[in-house]
Amino acid sequence: MKVYADNAATTKMSKAAIESMLPYFDEVYGNPSSLYSEGQKAKEVLTSAREKIASLLGCEPREITFTSGGSEADNQAIVSGARLGARKGKKHIISTKIEHHAVLHTLQSLEKEGFEVTLLDVKPDGIVDTQELKNAIREDTCLVTVMYANNEIGTIQPIKEIGAICKEKGILFHTDAVQAVGHIKINVKEENIDMLSLSAHKFHGPKGIGVLYADKKIPLSNIIYGGAQERGKRAGTENVPSIVGMKTALEEALLNVEENSRYILKLRDRLIEGLGKIPHSILNGDAQKRLPSNVNFCFEGIEGESLLLLLDDKGISASSGSACTSGSLDPSHVLLAIGRPHEIAHGSLRLSLSEQTTEQEVEYIIKSVIEVVEYLRSISPVWRDLVTGKNKFILK
Amino acid sequence: MKVYADNAATTKMSKAAIESMLPYFDEVYGNPSSLYSEGQKAKEVLTSAREKIASLLGCEPREITFTSGGSEADNQAIVSGARLGARKGKKHIISTKIEHHAVLHTLQSLEKEGFEVTLLDVKPDGIVDTQELKNAIREDTCLVTVMYANNEIGTIQPIKEIGAICKEKGILFHTDAVQAVGHIKINVKEENIDMLSLSAHKFHGPKGIGVLYADKKIPLSNIIYGGAQERGKRAGTENVPSIVGMKTALEEALLNVEENSRYILKLRDRLIEGLGKIPHSILNGDAQKRLPSNVNFCFEGIEGESLLLLLDDKGISASSGSACTSGSLDPSHVLLAIGRPHEIAHGSLRLSLSEQTTEQEVEYIIKSVIEVVEYLRSISPVWRDLVTGKNKFILK
Repeated sequence: MKVYADNAATTKMSKAAIESMLPYFDEVYGNPSSLYSEGQKAKEVLTSAREKIASLLGCEPREITFTSGGSEADNQAIVSGARLGARKGKKHIISTKIEHHAVLHTLQSLEKEGFEVTLLDVKPDGIVDTQELKNAIREDTCLVTVMYANNEIGTIQPIKEIGAICKEKGILFHTDAVQAVGHIKINVKEENIDMLSLSAHKFHGPKGIGVLYADKKIPLSNIIYGGAQERGKRAGTENVPSIVGMKTALEEALLNVEENSRYILKLRDRLIEGLGKIPHSILNGDAQKRLPSNVNFCFEGIEGESLLLLLDDKGISASSGSACTSGSLDPSHVLLAIGRPHEIAHGSLRLSLSEQTTEQEVEYIIKSVIEVVEYLRSISPVWRDLVTGKNKFILK
Repeated sequence: MKVYADNAATTKMSKAAIESMLPYFDEVYGNPSSLYSEGQKAKEVLTSAREKIASLLGCEPREITFTSGGSEADNQAIVSGARLGARKGKKHIISTKIEHHAVLHTLQSLEKEGFEVTLLDVKPDGIVDTQELKNAIREDTCLVTVMYANNEIGTIQPIKEIGAICKEKGILFHTDAVQAVGHIKINVKEENIDMLSLSAHKFHGPKGIGVLYADKKIPLSNIIYGGAQERGKRAGTENVPSIVGMKTALEEALLNVEENSRYILKLRDRLIEGLGKIPHSILNGDAQKRLPSNVNFCFEGIEGESLLLLLDDKGISASSGSACTSGSLDPSHVLLAIGRPHEIAHGSLRLSLSEQTTEQEVEYIIKSVIEVVEYLRSISPVWRDLVTGKNKFILK
């Protein structure tokens, strides 16, 4: 049996999204910046995709900037907020310890330029404490950036509340919503969001395309200079086929978002129940305030990589956390932030589902994980030391 | 008759390139950074595309960084060269007045950071004078960036010679080769190129994907921070389908580059001959040292936009210069640089051919341009003043 359970890393493109892209490769392939009909046809398509995506997010078309993906959108949002702040003498940024590296590394680059960054802790359930956020706000805070839903443990932050706090203080608020868009209904204006990043390949759209929504009051800074595309804020010939594919995928995802969500949530809760029975295991992140698609467990005495490879042998594609940090030997910064000790943070399993996942597949995952964990423990010296009482169990 | 003669703006994707992308949308769609087989399959594809593109450019695979296109590659190359220079106290950059805006605007952003930029003039034939370059080099010059072939007038610069001058002085040399790659055989090492930018959609590959080649001695600076993709130098999930499409298109273009080139050059020279017969017209750029695909004319007394719209009515897609600057009312900075006065620089016509262009289409273009120029002149007050001797002709 083949089971793809790593939809947080990337997704299979939907048939409708693929089909919608095809005419723009070799039929309507003109440059949207060109005057002639072939170019203007492409421009109309671009305009209509922008309008549709704006309406799906609850904003205006001119507030949508097309980027090459979520990382670029995160970078541009944060740099824009920082530059705007610096012009007013405000060089303090607040974020959290569980952000994606597209946020954390951008913040580090700004620290080198003299910005000060406060990274908030999260509670053991993986959620930001809004009182802590309030306490961290200073006179010179120019930007708060908090992710909508975490890419590893799926926890959903109180975005509307955080947005309201920022609004009250006149501070820009950005959210990296790469894991959330297409999976949860989001309305940027109602949720007090000034800037939001999204990536199409997380909701069955194409790779290499994303959006930065930025409220029209915000003058964006370029990170890619050049031609006058995207109102001069993002140079490069517009990627019309991918933009159309993204629009189709988002429309499709949101059309059925509640129904899909209910279905996936049932699968998720069955997985949590099934895997929770494994002794000395723990669910990472709040059991309810998390993406319907996300399950993340630690199993004591287990090395994450071996677990993944043996699951792969059984046909299951899963991950130990972020695909973007794979290859790194460091334990997950997210698991450390929710209080898991180093030896536990190394052994996590993330399963991320989609509406294409079946109940049968979920049962197969549960059965397989139980088998693999048992097997790995049977050959693990770490586990032996735990069972024989030489070392103490951390997880009950 | 429909004639697409704006291949410098963008191209129709080749069938082979489209076909090659399809399996990576919904079959081998794993994240190349993932450990499991589905991810590793994608990684192998990525590795093999990198190897093939490297071999086509004459460099090592690790010298290839995939970007979202030519603009991003230009930005990253120039920022990398500048940062590296600054660390050694060298903050002077040399470029030319005829670069693409992806280069010029990036240089302007660096000027705001305290870098000094010298923009070389070009000779009336649109070619850089290498003696002028030598004269402009200073002790603190860290980077020279000169485009391979101009996007408006197609002139090809003496890249190998410029590279040799830079090499001798220990200065990094970048070339924006967006218009050249796929149309001319380029070997980066033989031509003394340290960094080169290319864009797939200029050679019948997909939009939204490009390459920055950078010699392995150059530590690139990020402009997009985040995950560890591209050796940590360019964050974001790798766009596998587009990378494969780019590889296919480049392979195809270079396989037949000499044959195609001979064929297109014949068409180009026929166009130059045919349009050159229009009175008071002038070819922009050297007649020989230019891309086989590029023709660029000025016609006195003609307004560029009207010319394009009437050609469009006749089914011909052409441009007045760069698609990236369309919508701007300024005359072309390239035509000004080769000495065209303002009133002439407004009225240019760029025709850019491909191997798909036919002789019949070329004859149709000649006939149509002659008709349209005659018609526009017949209703132009500017032209009347010229003919009646009230104003003097600039072009013979």
